Amino acid sequence: MTELFNIEKIKYEGPGSNNDLAFKFYNPDQIVLGKPMKEHLPFAMAWWHNLCNAGKDIFGDETADKSFGAEKSTMDHAKAKVDAGFEMMEKLGIEYFCFHDVDLIPEADDIKETNRRLDEISDYMAEKMKGRNIKCLWGTANLFSNPRFMNGAGSSNSADIYCFAAAQIKKALDLTVKLGGKGYVFWGGREGYETLLNTDVKFEVENIANLMKMAVEYGRKIGFTGDFYIEPKPKEPMKHQYDFDAATAVGFLRQYGLDKDFKLNIEANHATLAGHTFQHDLRIAAINGMLGSIDANQGDNLLGWDTDQFPSNVYETTLCMYEVLKAGGITGGLNFDAKDRRPSYTDEDMFYGFILGMDAFALGLLKAAKIIEDGRIDGFLKDRYSSFESGIGAEIRAGKATLESLSAYAEEMGAPALPESGRQEKLEAIMNTVMFG
Amino acid sequence: MTELFNIEKIKYEGPGSNNDLAFKFYNPDQIVLGKPMKEHLPFAMAWWHNLCNAGKDIFGDETADKSFGAEKSTMDHAKAKVDAGFEMMEKLGIEYFCFHDVDLIPEADDIKETNRRLDEISDYMAEKMKGRNIKCLWGTANLFSNPRFMNGAGSSNSADIYCFAAAQIKKALDLTVKLGGKGYVFWGGREGYETLLNTDVKFEVENIANLMKMAVEYGRKIGFTGDFYIEPKPKEPMKHQYDFDAATAVGFLRQYGLDKDFKLNIEANHATLAGHTFQHDLRIAAINGMLGSIDANQGDNLLGWDTDQFPSNVYETTLCMYEVLKAGGITGGLNFDAKDRRPSYTDEDMFYGFILGMDAFALGLLKAAKIIEDGRIDGFLKDRYSSFESGIGAEIRAGKATLESLSAYAEEMGAPALPESGRQEKLEAIMNTVMFG
Amino acid sequence: MTELFNIEKIKYEGPGSNNDLAFKFYNPDQIVLGKPMKEHLPFAMAWWHNLCNAGKDIFGDETADKSFGAEKSTMDHAKAKVDAGFEMMEKLGIEYFCFHDVDLIPEADDIKETNRRLDEISDYMAEKMKGRNIKCLWGTANLFSNPRFMNGAGSSNSADIYCFAAAQIKKALDLTVKLGGKGYVFWGGREGYETLLNTDVKFEVENIANLMKMAVEYGRKIGFTGDFYIEPKPKEPMKHQYDFDAATAVGFLRQYGLDKDFKLNIEANHATLAGHTFQHDLRIAAINGMLGSIDANQGDNLLGWDTDQFPSNVYETTLCMYEVLKAGGITGGLNFDAKDRRPSYTDEDMFYGFILGMDAFALGLLKAAKIIEDGRIDGFLKDRYSSFESGIGAEIRAGKATLESLSAYAEEMGAPALPESGRQEKLEAIMNTVMFG
Amino acid sequence: MTELFNIEKIKYEGPGSNNDLAFKFYNPDQIVLGKPMKEHLPFAMAWWHNLCNAGKDIFGDETADKSFGAEKSTMDHAKAKVDAGFEMMEKLGIEYFCFHDVDLIPEADDIKETNRRLDEISDYMAEKMKGRNIKCLWGTANLFSNPRFMNGAGSSNSADIYCFAAAQIKKALDLTVKLGGKGYVFWGGREGYETLLNTDVKFEVENIANLMKMAVEYGRKIGFTGDFYIEPKPKEPMKHQYDFDAATAVGFLRQYGLDKDFKLNIEANHATLAGHTFQHDLRIAAINGMLGSIDANQGDNLLGWDTDQFPSNVYETTLCMYEVLKAGGITGGLNFDAKDRRPSYTDEDMFYGFILGMDAFALGLLKAAKIIEDGRIDGFLKDRYSSFESGIGAEIRAGKATLESLSAYAEEMGAPALPESGRQEKLEAIMNTVMFG
Repeated sequence: MTELFNIEKIKYEGPGSNNDLAFKFYNPDQIVLGKPMKEHLPFAMAWWHNLCNAGKDIFGDETADKSFGAEKSTMDHAKAKVDAGFEMMEKLGIEYFCFHDVDLIPEADDIKETNRRLDEISDYMAEKMKGRNIKCLWGTANLFSNPRFMNGAGSSNSADIYCFAAAQIKKALDLTVKLGGKGYVFWGGREGYETLLNTDVKFEVENIANLMKMAVEYGRKIGFTGDFYIEPKPKEPMKHQYDFDAATAVGFLRQYGLDKDFKLNIEANHATLAGHTFQHDLRIAAINGMLGSIDANQGDNLLGWDTDQFPSNVYETTLCMYEVLKAGGITGGLNFDAKDRRPSYTDEDMFYGFILGMDAFALGLLKAAKIIEDGRIDGFLKDRYSSFESGIGAEIRAGKATLESLSAYAEEMGAPALPESGRQEKLEAIMNTVMFG
Repeated sequence: MTELFNIEKIKYEGPGSNNDLAFKFYNPDQIVLGKPMKEHLPFAMAWWHNLCNAGKDIFGDETADKSFGAEKSTMDHAKAKVDAGFEMMEKLGIEYFCFHDVDLIPEADDIKETNRRLDEISDYMAEKMKGRNIKCLWGTANLFSNPRFMNGAGSSNSADIYCFAAAQIKKALDLTVKLGGKGYVFWGGREGYETLLNTDVKFEVENIANLMKMAVEYGRKIGFTGDFYIEPKPKEPMKHQYDFDAATAVGFLRQYGLDKDFKLNIEANHATLAGHTFQHDLRIAAINGMLGSIDANQGDNLLGWDTDQFPSNVYETTLCMYEVLKAGGITGGLNFDAKDRRPSYTDEDMFYGFILGMDAFALGLLKAAKIIEDGRIDGFLKDRYSSFESGIGAEIRAGKATLESLSAYAEEMGAPALPESGRQEKLEAIMNTVMFG
Repeated sequence: MTELFNIEKIKYEGPGSNNDLAFKFYNPDQIVLGKPMKEHLPFAMAWWHNLCNAGKDIFGDETADKSFGAEKSTMDHAKAKVDAGFEMMEKLGIEYFCFHDVDLIPEADDIKETNRRLDEISDYMAEKMKGRNIKCLWGTANLFSNPRFMNGAGSSNSADIYCFAAAQIKKALDLTVKLGGKGYVFWGGREGYETLLNTDVKFEVENIANLMKMAVEYGRKIGFTGDFYIEPKPKEPMKHQYDFDAATAVGFLRQYGLDKDFKLNIEANHATLAGHTFQHDLRIAAINGMLGSIDANQGDNLLGWDTDQFPSNVYETTLCMYEVLKAGGITGGLNFDAKDRRPSYTDEDMFYGFILGMDAFALGLLKAAKIIEDGRIDGFLKDRYSSFESGIGAEIRAGKATLESLSAYAEEMGAPALPESGRQEKLEAIMNTVMFG
Repeated sequence: MTELFNIEKIKYEGPGSNNDLAFKFYNPDQIVLGKPMKEHLPFAMAWWHNLCNAGKDIFGDETADKSFGAEKSTMDHAKAKVDAGFEMMEKLGIEYFCFHDVDLIPEADDIKETNRRLDEISDYMAEKMKGRNIKCLWGTANLFSNPRFMNGAGSSNSADIYCFAAAQIKKALDLTVKLGGKGYVFWGGREGYETLLNTDVKFEVENIANLMKMAVEYGRKIGFTGDFYIEPKPKEPMKHQYDFDAATAVGFLRQYGLDKDFKLNIEANHATLAGHTFQHDLRIAAINGMLGSIDANQGDNLLGWDTDQFPSNVYETTLCMYEVLKAGGITGGLNFDAKDRRPSYTDEDMFYGFILGMDAFALGLLKAAKIIEDGRIDGFLKDRYSSFESGIGAEIRAGKATLESLSAYAEEMGAPALPESGRQEKLEAIMNTVMFG
């Protein structure tokens, strides 16, 4: 098979390579905290950004050529994308991919024909996966791009469209199982509202929950044993989306009894759009036992939309991997839901983006491991709450206190001492010595 | 008793008065949707902003004189504030007030002395309430201003300070019951974090829940039958606060079994700081059965801190009252958690602020009632979801559908019709005809 | 000619019409402050949003059908758009339109062919304008959509593309003059940067200034006597755009000697994206003598991108018209750079959008006139600075003071009195009585 | 003299020290790009944050003890602050300080008495500076904290207060000259507006310019040869401030003929509040020849107020130092306008903050130098614009082109090639290899 990408200058030659640019930090077999880097970092390629997106934005047309030598909107092109995607993954050493149904094929007017095409392409993919170390991380259905989903899918005001969404989910679940996917994602791109003047929030949220329940039921029936994921996002494309952030999604899942089957897929850029740090939403998911998978990208805090940049900020990747390590790992993976900037439109740029992101996460893992090994930050944290380990503190933790008992204690005590200094600046300095020492 | 406020030019003379400025729209006895305006609008004065705050900000000192003729930091001053507050409430026709413990008196070093002062001032207030139509809407404990709460109260890393907070809550509950308060509020000003480098979120959130459970237990024991409230706020003074928004608070209350005793106190400016409209957070509270009380103020969407302005935007007050009317009213009230701008430092400005806010809410009530009477917006909304009233839609709502049944329906249907237009522009035009017609 | 739009139910029948919805407030011939409403409100239709945009967003495809009965990407379609646009303008009573070159025709690969098409369509338009009261407000060249402008036009790193941009500007100026346009606009959609790592800001800004100088020279040569405009915008599509806001654009124009020929075209939504109110940027333009034209739309302060909504907020339109009236009017017009929300995809919605916007501006004009006639706000403002009308204040204003003279005065004076209260709350209350009284 | 700070564990022992925490990267005498690190990094201590601020915020009282053993609000305390400040500077190896007039002494009611106290304290400081390597970077007058400046100083509506401001500026200039200050700063904390309803922007801006002109005149007269600086900030404490950002301040200085005497003092956190990166505002100042001095701190992009954190983000300090190096250095210094977080309230924390900041800037310098030595980023940038070095590009740069000549060229050329890829991801990857390689 002909190679699509001639990337001699940027091909992987291992850390320290003399290439103009290649991996400098990502070394898949390097042992970190007892296991190979690649096991800590189950990277995934996102079909949509990498193989479909060609640089279109709201003010301009495509800049990149993603035809991969085939005519667009054909099954040949669908297959060329598979070939290109697999070649890239292999050259980069990425073992997972993620997809929406309509990333894979040109959608037909008739869902039966669409599904036939999905069968064809998934046969092709399954065949290609044989003997290769390429796996499906998760699948999903695109329930937001087609005009019919203008008012949402599960939250649509049209029962017919709700049914159509259900049919797409069913098929996407079939595909996910067929391709051995570890998870199935719901991203509610249009599940939200444009204006409350025309929206019954309660009705819509109930309908969404209902649809997810059906998906769980069907998935389990066909043998899907992986996790379902909600991917929170606060806004864009809608004015307001229901899965605003991790806390909101956790509350929703518990309210509708979905918390046994669902975890969260946390995306860096979605967290920041909601006013949280990436680390915050990872933490919220983790302490609720719902840190499932991660969309590894980066936003721009000075911009108000989802820039989906390849992650480059090593502070962010370090804090992400710190949360992952502290949570004991994730069941999903690190999906690069990221795209090159519009003016980075060449084939080489496709590789540079991944190299940037994979190296940034390799550094993040190494630094996070170093923080843990260093022990000062964790040690500080442990000491900080030590007043709750004995005496009145222990009683409080044990649930044996009452306002009366604590009040009596307080009256006895007089003015309490100030709490120990939070030492934020010292901790940040420690962080920098770990990062750059 | 000598009057403190000589406000001839701005005193209330009813709508249409020729005063330079007085109420033009607030007419307490006017019947709206079957009951007097004042019953729809249970306004409250906030002790802290109105009687304590004198214009200090992070870059400058007090501009207003809030001594009310007494020496500051004395019990005389505490009583002068009661006198001033009651005079203002009566002159404005406001029937409720809200307070923190330390708004009422100068805090002593010793909590026993503080509590003694609280007893004294509450005796004075209770006496003064006799024969007057002045009531307590809600009380709370200030667990954020004193340096000891630098790391939070329920979320403090110091068990001693946790106890101190418990003691303050106990006393504030006592006072609330003594003054006949309808509710008790938790605003977690320092319940959050400055940096995750030194914070165990799970530990802290559990401790907060524990403290709230004790408060419920104690409150019910001493005969408090009202609602407890959480007042969500996302940030400021902390980098991140745990009660980020309505959805987060609802999820927290359910997770810790507090949802039977707690409702939410929604503040306009806090909702917008969290990236939501005021109406959004009211709606989220309402559809979860937790719309309890409202902090009626206004923020500035171009600024990133809590400006706590008196509400003036009639679109906002209209949508607020629309949500309140649709929710069947609130058990709490409309507390003006609002302060004059720093350069509005005179006694007259104290009245102008309330006149602005009360008139804005009177207009809001009148316009909301008109929207409901007009019926076009509600009618549109009802029609919009009508496809779920019969056929496949009804099956979905009844929980009888499965992915298979819906998928079969979808395959049969072929390409579904687009949903009906959302008509946002038409609805906004209707809104303007109602507002200005 | 067949009518495209069958809008019996929404056609204009004057204020007070019994139609389900039509103009309730816009009454073109009503005299306001001495001249007809329509002269105060020179509304314009934006070719791109109204006749081209079909609801595509970054997450989804077109929802509306803007074929107007012709095959897309043909000259027939180009003409159908002219027919549709003129029919809409006439039915709505809008007298102006604005256009980009490539809004008018499908762009060819060869600029000579593109220009030929532009000649053809402008002949068609000019012919159609005869005998109709339809005029061109301003024209412009689209220097951002084509992939070649990925790095900007005047700021491109490619000299060839710079030339191409110059050629487009030349042709767009020719068209503007041919169609009698009152102004010519530069909106620097891609004139900015994605990252400073690859950007020479000084070089790029100089190149842009150079291009504008050439445009002025050429325009004056071919007889263009109108104003050139810069339309400030801070970001989107780029990370950062050079014409960030009014103050930045004013500074740039003065620095490069362009201030005699250029004014500003202020867009509401661009001002708010830059952290200013719409009124602020209008004021900054006005006090610098550069308030030229207005893009009349509305953003969403809780969202971080250009929503380009039809204006509905009457506070905003009132403050806009107040600035316009105070500035003695504008030389340009009020261009609805606005689009229906994506789910408002029908022909009727096209009309509802304009009705919403035109009525909102009619109300804005009426309320602004009422504020001026009322006189309280203007009177307050005049009094507020009266200490500068005599004595030391007058000396300061006359430029006769020195630090020494003022210091001597201050030492004499002792502690100065506080300034008069700013009375913000009273002024906001007056504003509400004017708006709703 | 007794030492105030017993900081054995954190005292400076040079890079690689075994202390728990001390400088790891700041090594004053290390040669970087040909000169000692300390000459690249003229650090300054800010009197206000370090010696005055004790942790008060809008929701809470002081947490730290900044009495330094003296009674607050006395001249003894003023002197104790000098002693403490000098001890800290010497222990940290900081050679500069910055001050406001009222940072130095307790302000009296009478300006003559205030000035007498300023004379006394500046005598004390001047005496103390003898034989020590401690210098004044810049002085300024605090024209925002006192209630009299509620409506601004130069922008006040009161002529008397304008005079009072002038008197303070005169004295602050006297002090700056007496202490050998290199610069004099205007930060317009209240120079802006709360609402346009009561504000004449043009009048106020003219008055401010007038005051600055008087300051220049007086300063030059008394022998001040340094730079005047404007420090841009967009908002807080006001709703809107006139010196919004670098571009606005540059435009203002040119408009009023102040650009010969003034440069800018760029603060990181102010740039980000205005929607720009720190690097952006540095660049804008630099390319206008106005990069004078720097307030070295760090904000929080997820918060909307001036957090004034000690700088810790090495990406930011690297890009800052890169701009400084590219600009050929600055005439001013790097002033830590930064404060510890409120819960970091101990003496040790005072040192940790500076250690964090100084090490972060030392790293920033080292990494910036490495970027320059590496040459790849600069080389890419140079190549990127090479099409303007010859042919049509050179003609454009030389100002010899016209729209006609460029248009003729474009028609000849046909469709131009796409510009070279912007390579953002590659450049970011290079940046990371430099940062972490």
